[in-house]
Amino acid sequence: MDEKYMELALEEAYKAFSTYEVPVGAVIVNNGKIIGKGYNKRETLKDPTAHAEIIAIKEASQYLGGWRLLGSTMYVTVEPCAMCAGAIISSRIDRLVIGAKGPKMGCCGSTMNLLDNPNFNHRVDITFGILEEECSQIMKDFFKKLRNRK
Amino acid sequence: MDEKYMELALEEAYKAFSTYEVPVGAVIVNNGKIIGKGYNKRETLKDPTAHAEIIAIKEASQYLGGWRLLGSTMYVTVEPCAMCAGAIISSRIDRLVIGAKGPKMGCCGSTMNLLDNPNFNHRVDITFGILEEECSQIMKDFFKKLRNRK
Repeated sequence: MDEKYMELALEEAYKAFSTYEVPVGAVIVNNGKIIGKGYNKRETLKDPTAHAEIIAIKEASQYLGGWRLLGSTMYVTVEPCAMCAGAIISSRIDRLVIGAKGPKMGCCGSTMNLLDNPNFNHRVDITFGILEEECSQIMKDFFKKLRNRK
Repeated sequence: MDEKYMELALEEAYKAFSTYEVPVGAVIVNNGKIIGKGYNKRETLKDPTAHAEIIAIKEASQYLGGWRLLGSTMYVTVEPCAMCAGAIISSRIDRLVIGAKGPKMGCCGSTMNLLDNPNFNHRVDITFGILEEECSQIMKDFFKKLRNRK
């Protein structure tokens, strides 16, 4: 099941890729239903908060009619940054499934782990490495395309 | 000047207070001009990302026509959480002026400091304690009001 949902997150990432955005995609699942999805639109929307995860969380909270996404799982192709890890805490998502690691900005284990901090009022269960190869490859392809374009 | 802009952030916080939202307000200043402001609307918008800082950052990036808020200063009545500190990094805000500390969720020095992390590609200059008393008092008044209401 994790692979199936990560495939859908990858589909979102490909939408970002095709619009010259860093290719990250996310979906949020609650009770077996997709309640939110998103892909990075930072350049398109000229908005530094328009990461895939934030867009998916906004959609999911509108779907559920409240800001608490308890019982939800987020699938994301690349490890969330500080802002997105913070948004995951803020929305009370219970489980996070990650494709590729984010060695520079990732805040779910790579540079630090915000989701397992005893100071905060919420912790998140993390699974790494689902479709890691594909999630990592699309990032490499994107930066190669960007270099060739310049 | 810091007190003048923090007064405006406090005005935003009072708008949150009057709508039964945790009273946090923020303004963003660039070249002496207010380019974004916001107050917490988490309950009103049913959106876990609708903190004062995120709303102000979205407005400022629309104003400047791009996601980089270089040269900008954010004034916020309460120390930003992980999500908002991450958004401040993501938007390349240069300076952050804080009213009251956030001992439970604050990520700019209280529980940790995300804005001075050598792993990340951006650091932020922080000033604490501007109108601290007022920024702290409105929070106390709010939670007292909330307890009385229950």
